[in-house]
Amino acid sequence: MSRYWSQTTKRIKPYVPGEQPRDKTYIKLNTNENPYPPSPRVIEALHRAADESLRRYPDPECEELRQTIARCVGVAREQVFCGNGSDELLAFAFLAFFNPGTPILFPDITYSFYPVYCTVFHLDYEPVPLDMSFTIPVEKFFVPNGGIVIANPNAPTGTCLPRAAVREILEHNFGSVVIVDEAYCDFGAESAVPLVQEFPNLLIVQTLSKSRSLAGLRVGFAIGHQELIEGVRRVKDSMNSYTLDRLALAGAVAALEDEAYYRETIRRVIATRERTAAALRAVGFSVIPSKANFLFITHPEAKATELYQQLRDRGVLVRHFNLPRIDNYLRVSIGTDQEMDAFLDCITALVQKTGT
Amino acid sequence: MSRYWSQTTKRIKPYVPGEQPRDKTYIKLNTNENPYPPSPRVIEALHRAADESLRRYPDPECEELRQTIARCVGVAREQVFCGNGSDELLAFAFLAFFNPGTPILFPDITYSFYPVYCTVFHLDYEPVPLDMSFTIPVEKFFVPNGGIVIANPNAPTGTCLPRAAVREILEHNFGSVVIVDEAYCDFGAESAVPLVQEFPNLLIVQTLSKSRSLAGLRVGFAIGHQELIEGVRRVKDSMNSYTLDRLALAGAVAALEDEAYYRETIRRVIATRERTAAALRAVGFSVIPSKANFLFITHPEAKATELYQQLRDRGVLVRHFNLPRIDNYLRVSIGTDQEMDAFLDCITALVQKTGT
Repeated sequence: MSRYWSQTTKRIKPYVPGEQPRDKTYIKLNTNENPYPPSPRVIEALHRAADESLRRYPDPECEELRQTIARCVGVAREQVFCGNGSDELLAFAFLAFFNPGTPILFPDITYSFYPVYCTVFHLDYEPVPLDMSFTIPVEKFFVPNGGIVIANPNAPTGTCLPRAAVREILEHNFGSVVIVDEAYCDFGAESAVPLVQEFPNLLIVQTLSKSRSLAGLRVGFAIGHQELIEGVRRVKDSMNSYTLDRLALAGAVAALEDEAYYRETIRRVIATRERTAAALRAVGFSVIPSKANFLFITHPEAKATELYQQLRDRGVLVRHFNLPRIDNYLRVSIGTDQEMDAFLDCITALVQKTGT
Repeated sequence: MSRYWSQTTKRIKPYVPGEQPRDKTYIKLNTNENPYPPSPRVIEALHRAADESLRRYPDPECEELRQTIARCVGVAREQVFCGNGSDELLAFAFLAFFNPGTPILFPDITYSFYPVYCTVFHLDYEPVPLDMSFTIPVEKFFVPNGGIVIANPNAPTGTCLPRAAVREILEHNFGSVVIVDEAYCDFGAESAVPLVQEFPNLLIVQTLSKSRSLAGLRVGFAIGHQELIEGVRRVKDSMNSYTLDRLALAGAVAALEDEAYYRETIRRVIATRERTAAALRAVGFSVIPSKANFLFITHPEAKATELYQQLRDRGVLVRHFNLPRIDNYLRVSIGTDQEMDAFLDCITALVQKTGT
């Protein structure tokens, strides 16, 4: 603590991102990065954009990228907002739509950044307990609230709600903004984008970090009614007019234009996920059905903290959350088939040793 | 206004960045961009960094860039923080160090983003009137306050305080954080960086946008006591863990390593600035002595709004602020010699027409 910190700074408990280790090379299955490289067209676009025009500010309105996204997802340009990754968009949206006083609702087990946003912006929140199978209990969101945030698929569980369930939540909440965080949606979940035309209180957040293999480029986008987009823009323009640099803008446009490439890499990630889930179940793991690019797993006879450390010692990095209800689980990102084979060999040996 | 906007969103008056026109090609002297391209080594570094590693998150701690900055400015790595342009850093710093209640002090004529940050974070502020020659009256900052922000050189005036004056402000304000915004410092002002070791309440903000010709890459940095840096980091990690993408990190390191190149382009900008100032004075302009890459000018017989429009009609874009005390001034960024010659021809013809 420093005497110079504001009350806010003293109170916040910052989000801790997954480790980016530098001590040695790991099979890195801890931050849900895509194992496949971005489209070659992205790399080409970046090479073209890396020129002397960098002396100029980027377009603060991200017009070209917004038009590209609008075309890809089938909405108007005015319904699209671009940000420096979906985390920044979520921060802006919390500030743009939520007020101190009435609690924001989100599941008790979900992306651990949500309570952090609440703390930094002085918002109250009420965690809604997931049921025993980690399903989101839709009807528990039919109560007065100051806003709702749902990750769909949820993290770190990977479970997802069908669009009809998201619609139900929206139908019971015309008074508040419902943010649906679709960071992992491309890996098999139903997007709520088609509901945007119907519900003026729905804001959807997506990212190019996962399905587009561009975690290193920092591009996310939001889709919603024009008035919500304008609200997020007002907040952005009160903090930083230009959050996306010229390279990120160029790379993101190219990524969105190469749909065929990403459909194929996504298909591969899904196939590897299903194969890995089956192999884990075969050696006694309970694997939560996942529509994301990770699996959330637990074993009746092996302690997650020990498995985490043993895997780490053997050069395999996964993620463990030391949080109530999920402290005996591991979140395992889906890597290449080769990486997952190495992980499976390793973890199988570990649990079989435990079992004997 | 939307019923879904938060109280904050309803209240804020977002900052309006300088126009990035798309209707035609202008001699663009309105956003203080550097007329010279970034170092060729930056472009090379960007080409090298645009590869498949983009599927990975960037380093959230910006270790390599922080080390490079630390080496360049002569501080420890722990005294450096990197952000997505100096605007983002300022936003984080306002939230990290200032509390609602006690007013923040900054000059009445200064970077117009400062009051915007105050509004979005519910901070009170008190503008300190500059004297008639637009000098910052140091002793007016020797009063109780919740924090101080000084742009040095100031914007949009270009005037600057010597380091001794900054020291005086610091000596009278051990109780609060003093932010010195040195966005334009490289163009001839004295940096306060040497004071950082002495004053634990000094935070300096700089950017690569201006002197390093990288407005399009979005990189700024802050220098201060380790506890202040930790405060900014806490705020950043409560909003967005990764605000600098892999390309921005790589390009920024390369820019800082090519000092010789930038010393030369800065030298040229300064030479052009002085030549332009002399030419403007010769046709009757009052030109505020500037240590930045722009000039702030007024003419006794020509209205600034009219000059602005007439220049625009002739393809020259400058900036006009419709604000008290400065509404008869124009801010003119320093372009290449050729651009400034065209500007001078144009504006000379305009004021001579007015004069006759």
